[in-house]
Amino acid sequence: MLETYISRADLDAFVERVLAEDLGEGGDVTSSATIPEEARLDAVMASRDDVVVAGLPLAAMFFRALDQHVAIEQMAADGDEAPSGTVLMRLSGNARKMLAAERSALNSLQHLTGIATLTRAFVKAIEGTGCILLDTRKTIPGLRALGKYASRMGGAQNHRMRLDDGILIKDNHVAVAGGVAEAVAAATRARSALQIQVEVDRLDQIEPALAAGAQRLLLDNMPPPVLRQAVELVDGRVPTEASGGVRLATIRAIAETGVTYVSVGRITQSAPAADIGLDYV
Amino acid sequence: MLETYISRADLDAFVERVLAEDLGEGGDVTSSATIPEEARLDAVMASRDDVVVAGLPLAAMFFRALDQHVAIEQMAADGDEAPSGTVLMRLSGNARKMLAAERSALNSLQHLTGIATLTRAFVKAIEGTGCILLDTRKTIPGLRALGKYASRMGGAQNHRMRLDDGILIKDNHVAVAGGVAEAVAAATRARSALQIQVEVDRLDQIEPALAAGAQRLLLDNMPPPVLRQAVELVDGRVPTEASGGVRLATIRAIAETGVTYVSVGRITQSAPAADIGLDYV
Amino acid sequence: MLETYISRADLDAFVERVLAEDLGEGGDVTSSATIPEEARLDAVMASRDDVVVAGLPLAAMFFRALDQHVAIEQMAADGDEAPSGTVLMRLSGNARKMLAAERSALNSLQHLTGIATLTRAFVKAIEGTGCILLDTRKTIPGLRALGKYASRMGGAQNHRMRLDDGILIKDNHVAVAGGVAEAVAAATRARSALQIQVEVDRLDQIEPALAAGAQRLLLDNMPPPVLRQAVELVDGRVPTEASGGVRLATIRAIAETGVTYVSVGRITQSAPAADIGLDYV
Amino acid sequence: MLETYISRADLDAFVERVLAEDLGEGGDVTSSATIPEEARLDAVMASRDDVVVAGLPLAAMFFRALDQHVAIEQMAADGDEAPSGTVLMRLSGNARKMLAAERSALNSLQHLTGIATLTRAFVKAIEGTGCILLDTRKTIPGLRALGKYASRMGGAQNHRMRLDDGILIKDNHVAVAGGVAEAVAAATRARSALQIQVEVDRLDQIEPALAAGAQRLLLDNMPPPVLRQAVELVDGRVPTEASGGVRLATIRAIAETGVTYVSVGRITQSAPAADIGLDYV
Amino acid sequence: MLETYISRADLDAFVERVLAEDLGEGGDVTSSATIPEEARLDAVMASRDDVVVAGLPLAAMFFRALDQHVAIEQMAADGDEAPSGTVLMRLSGNARKMLAAERSALNSLQHLTGIATLTRAFVKAIEGTGCILLDTRKTIPGLRALGKYASRMGGAQNHRMRLDDGILIKDNHVAVAGGVAEAVAAATRARSALQIQVEVDRLDQIEPALAAGAQRLLLDNMPPPVLRQAVELVDGRVPTEASGGVRLATIRAIAETGVTYVSVGRITQSAPAADIGLDYV
Amino acid sequence: MLETYISRADLDAFVERVLAEDLGEGGDVTSSATIPEEARLDAVMASRDDVVVAGLPLAAMFFRALDQHVAIEQMAADGDEAPSGTVLMRLSGNARKMLAAERSALNSLQHLTGIATLTRAFVKAIEGTGCILLDTRKTIPGLRALGKYASRMGGAQNHRMRLDDGILIKDNHVAVAGGVAEAVAAATRARSALQIQVEVDRLDQIEPALAAGAQRLLLDNMPPPVLRQAVELVDGRVPTEASGGVRLATIRAIAETGVTYVSVGRITQSAPAADIGLDYV
Repeated sequence: MLETYISRADLDAFVERVLAEDLGEGGDVTSSATIPEEARLDAVMASRDDVVVAGLPLAAMFFRALDQHVAIEQMAADGDEAPSGTVLMRLSGNARKMLAAERSALNSLQHLTGIATLTRAFVKAIEGTGCILLDTRKTIPGLRALGKYASRMGGAQNHRMRLDDGILIKDNHVAVAGGVAEAVAAATRARSALQIQVEVDRLDQIEPALAAGAQRLLLDNMPPPVLRQAVELVDGRVPTEASGGVRLATIRAIAETGVTYVSVGRITQSAPAADIGLDYV
Repeated sequence: MLETYISRADLDAFVERVLAEDLGEGGDVTSSATIPEEARLDAVMASRDDVVVAGLPLAAMFFRALDQHVAIEQMAADGDEAPSGTVLMRLSGNARKMLAAERSALNSLQHLTGIATLTRAFVKAIEGTGCILLDTRKTIPGLRALGKYASRMGGAQNHRMRLDDGILIKDNHVAVAGGVAEAVAAATRARSALQIQVEVDRLDQIEPALAAGAQRLLLDNMPPPVLRQAVELVDGRVPTEASGGVRLATIRAIAETGVTYVSVGRITQSAPAADIGLDYV
Repeated sequence: MLETYISRADLDAFVERVLAEDLGEGGDVTSSATIPEEARLDAVMASRDDVVVAGLPLAAMFFRALDQHVAIEQMAADGDEAPSGTVLMRLSGNARKMLAAERSALNSLQHLTGIATLTRAFVKAIEGTGCILLDTRKTIPGLRALGKYASRMGGAQNHRMRLDDGILIKDNHVAVAGGVAEAVAAATRARSALQIQVEVDRLDQIEPALAAGAQRLLLDNMPPPVLRQAVELVDGRVPTEASGGVRLATIRAIAETGVTYVSVGRITQSAPAADIGLDYV
Repeated sequence: MLETYISRADLDAFVERVLAEDLGEGGDVTSSATIPEEARLDAVMASRDDVVVAGLPLAAMFFRALDQHVAIEQMAADGDEAPSGTVLMRLSGNARKMLAAERSALNSLQHLTGIATLTRAFVKAIEGTGCILLDTRKTIPGLRALGKYASRMGGAQNHRMRLDDGILIKDNHVAVAGGVAEAVAAATRARSALQIQVEVDRLDQIEPALAAGAQRLLLDNMPPPVLRQAVELVDGRVPTEASGGVRLATIRAIAETGVTYVSVGRITQSAPAADIGLDYV
Repeated sequence: MLETYISRADLDAFVERVLAEDLGEGGDVTSSATIPEEARLDAVMASRDDVVVAGLPLAAMFFRALDQHVAIEQMAADGDEAPSGTVLMRLSGNARKMLAAERSALNSLQHLTGIATLTRAFVKAIEGTGCILLDTRKTIPGLRALGKYASRMGGAQNHRMRLDDGILIKDNHVAVAGGVAEAVAAATRARSALQIQVEVDRLDQIEPALAAGAQRLLLDNMPPPVLRQAVELVDGRVPTEASGGVRLATIRAIAETGVTYVSVGRITQSAPAADIGLDYV
Repeated sequence: MLETYISRADLDAFVERVLAEDLGEGGDVTSSATIPEEARLDAVMASRDDVVVAGLPLAAMFFRALDQHVAIEQMAADGDEAPSGTVLMRLSGNARKMLAAERSALNSLQHLTGIATLTRAFVKAIEGTGCILLDTRKTIPGLRALGKYASRMGGAQNHRMRLDDGILIKDNHVAVAGGVAEAVAAATRARSALQIQVEVDRLDQIEPALAAGAQRLLLDNMPPPVLRQAVELVDGRVPTEASGGVRLATIRAIAETGVTYVSVGRITQSAPAADIGLDYV
């Protein structure tokens, strides 16, 4: 599942980089000094709070990167809800290697599970409205693909992954291009294979955007009553997306306006680490 | 200041990686298509909440990486408190490049400033106690050095940066080595140039640890009354550090027990992104 | 212009790789042995056939990579038609460095100019029809971005750059997904921010594809009379693209059917090197 | 065979780079969205024209890089002549992975087979003359080693691979060094372990070059009657090589002059892609 | 054992780099040209002088890097004393690959064994004194970790591996910081998790250094009688280390002064290559 | 001069790697903690023994890599003889950066100067004989190019740099190929652009080797009287090279036999570090 979204090579590079940042040049000198080279350990990884799991196969990769013979039993799948106390993984392997990988694995799992858990709360808040939750390009630097994987595990769909896989025409582009029609035409000429979305922040911008050939509209920072009008104006001709400062307390009212999508930056940018522990048994 | 903690080469590599993850192979196709190659923009970066700034010189690096001629006026320094509305930076440069760098710069600045802001709250909570706040190895994967830089800007001191720059002997090490004396002796033999810290979770472990040659004690998960007794037992022979689930609500009581240090994982692992915006003027 | 399409970092990496492949570990040992370190040379680069130039700024980068003080006067721009004998560039610099860079610079310029020259022939063949020439993902391995830059300089527009910047649903996808409607729905769910194109090779597939939500149609290997019928059926609802074995002799008949685009693999995959020489003066 | 000429590590790096350029950050999003993770496909790769195969083991590497369990049956060997319709390879593997690797594999195979096919035509043109066909440093940038591998599969021998594995003294070197004797002496002093070849473009330069210690002569742009005289003058003392604008129509006359070698740039620089297809069965 | 000190990834990178430097782009062209692809060889590696072995598993890695099926029987272990004529390793594998790896493997083994052999001589010179031999940061550039591994195999303990894993306060630091107390305090504030060592070159500097909080003393360039006084002054409060121009002829007198450690640069910086040969049988 | 032999890019990579190995992730923590960011230092680098300098511009690169504004006055050139006490370089720059670069710069300079110094001793030993000293592929792993640069500065000429820039046919190759004629023919066919050297260890092998087309002979492990006979047999037809266990005490007798070259492994493999110091003034 994870490898559907991120290539094995990118995952390996991530694991290598994170291990390097914790192991440095010298590795886990404490364990190397005090634990015999062949000693073994058994361990259990479990949630210590109610969480939505994301990153379990990634966590396993850290242990395998240092000890290719470690035995790992994965007891949950990414996307699962795991009430506090759920055993997520059992491990048995070389003691030095397991201790050396532990912090890197936990830091990664706690971060991604934190994102999935927060995302799921947003998804549940709009349940039944038909509106779809999207993530954004507001992500922790260096963790774009993993953060978006975690938000997907939480139940969101992914918006643009990068600046190069979709056209999003904003105010600045329209102003410099000399009008929304000119901007859309220029974008089509440059990269006709990309979808063209246009941002609007007033109702009177909607019709010109559609006339220019917008294939999707971003309704920026509109309060619910205005969003509702926007949805009526668009009348199903293209998908609509509400965006801007959306919080758990406000998302349902937005979703009920009938917009196709609502996008939220904080699910990938401000999720606290989930509480997950590793105990040696 | 930033380069005191992280080498220029590492900063450059980070900037390159983060830009690559947002620009992909194709770059900001919207701006390339709609904005003339030589168009220029002026912009103002400002806080939209009360924050402690961290990462301003790093944010500038993203713009410079794409436009070496961009004019940047930095109006605040890392570590500064910036009330909501403070102008942090003024920029003037190539329009395409500035738009292409914007999200990477903001994602980085918002994340690090979030850490510094939360850290400062913890620092203020223990003001006057003489106790020193430390960060931990609980960091966002891939952002160890930057996260610790931000916590330092918030007022914390840095604990171990990696597993290889200090010895920290825990239960597992003692158990396998056959006693705390054996573990400390093995560590000294292996790497006598490193400082040796020993973790204790009961009062009766303190004296054996000191006798074995521990140069510092980690007091794990002890409630304040027990911490106070531990501090009395150690009696200044080595520094002491309290650790384990420390929150804003509980840190002052811990600090008042007389421990030299208190370490907190959530300042680097669970800080929400700070609200900072970039407006084109 | 070149840097609008390919980032400076990618260009630098390409130049470094190509120089490395010609210089090896030891460099231009002949010139190092026989020419004094400070000797200088003047040179003129000129076309020896009628060409459409592409890659001139790239060629300059090879010389600058080895000699940052080389003086280069560029006498033509990428996209220019240069009849045989046109001076494209004058150079003056360190003799050893210029000789060491010469073959790498020429190999690159000759290859890209070859692509632009062949592309221009196709563009001229459909002049006046309103149909737009597209390149494809059929490129020389390792030269995707540069090849597509050259085809653009020749007058083509770029189709998908990679597999990840657009959805193109083919027979196999439809078969496995259980129908074109199911395939389009699955694609929308996975990556709603991408444009969805559907390949059809029979007229009766057109209406179901449009009903499913295709935003663009690829008309594969249809002879001109069938293409004409397809264009009538689509009736402007979405753009159409003809594809498959298109040659200089056949492209005009295809373009005259009214399709929006025609895509041609051989412009990037089979263009002979253009004849361009460097003479020392 | 392939690994005799190019190291496994270099081949792996090439495969990785080419896949990256087609898959981008996001991979084959169409297949990921529409095809189940475990679906399988069988496919047949066949020539659609008369070709000389080169790059078949390399093509297989692309599929294996994405799907280590793919079953591949190679039905031809590099260097084989494969008339139109020859089955070259049968594959059976994961559907998503096979579709994701297809274009990269075909682009590589079509390019190298194109080189081998054109090279074979030149080799046949000089059959029976005893003259040996050489390739040159005129190659597609970034594809030096693979292009020269393909020309070898076509029947050519390889000339210098890079600037650092042989001395080739040209006009410029002689002029600056102060004479051919001085140039050869300087080259010997610098790198006595390398073979020294001297370029001559007039008959009266031959004797001085030999006297200076040239171990091989490059006869540049001489018409066949002059080449014949040159061969007589050299009289077997060192090998001779004809070079400069050699075409299929002219190569036999050149070869019949008795030169040891004839070198041709266009076999590696201007070969059209061979027509090879992959069909799912 | 080797992997306790250097990570597998670092070892692999070293092997790759060293092979690349000997094989270049083209590999062992002599063997490729003259030896059939499938030919096999048996070989014996043996000492030709009395040595202390270091780097045998590393030497094996070079052969395995090129031929994953090579059969290697290791007849000695790193750290073993091997009198002249001892068989260290038997190999059987692909002839081309073995010849291609030979020089890289021998160069590495001869260098590291040279270090271990010289180190062992120093260790034996101080046998029975209780003093411990340390290496230094004076190492061959690029071979820090391997050099220190070899000195450890010779019987030394490792001093600081890098500048970032310990504090060593010298004259310059004290002078600029305004006194040894200020320097130690600044170091503690900056990185309290690191051990603090202070260099002294006069007896009257010892007490202030200890009062400032030095956890270890470096006694620089003191003759044995002064060292003896220093040891008396320190009186076991912290470990002491003698350093500066130590030679085989002088080390015992130094060790007999009672210092805890003596550090020697020449063991890693000036050891001659050990005489070890590979014979084909 | 240095950049004639090693590319700037390779030098930069070396400097980066060596600095990384000494600075680790955390840099010179002692200096960062105790010395103000803007403090400056002046320093003098001087020989403390009679040496032949090699690597001075490289040493300067380490300081410049960390402090681009450091002022460096180079007082000697690579290849110069510098009696003990000669000032080689004066430096003035940022104190932290200079201290951080010091050990890397010195380790490199001491190593290369050690090689040049030892090489010069061998060169002087054969002065007046007309015989030329060559280095070998016996080098410190990872330091091939730099070691050979230093031996050249000491007065040697360079033999093969790598396995791919020359053919050297040894016993094994002859045995497997079925004779020296077959081996030379195979080598010519494979890579006619490379020089072909044949190793002989008996006088009766000389004539067959020359008849087979050897362009140079390696006379392996022959005592001086045999070498003299070999030289007479060859009679100037090709260059000759004596090799095998050559020492300072034996080299003159070998050189006086009339061989063109004598090659010595120990100059690059066993040179002790030269004594060079850096003093702050």
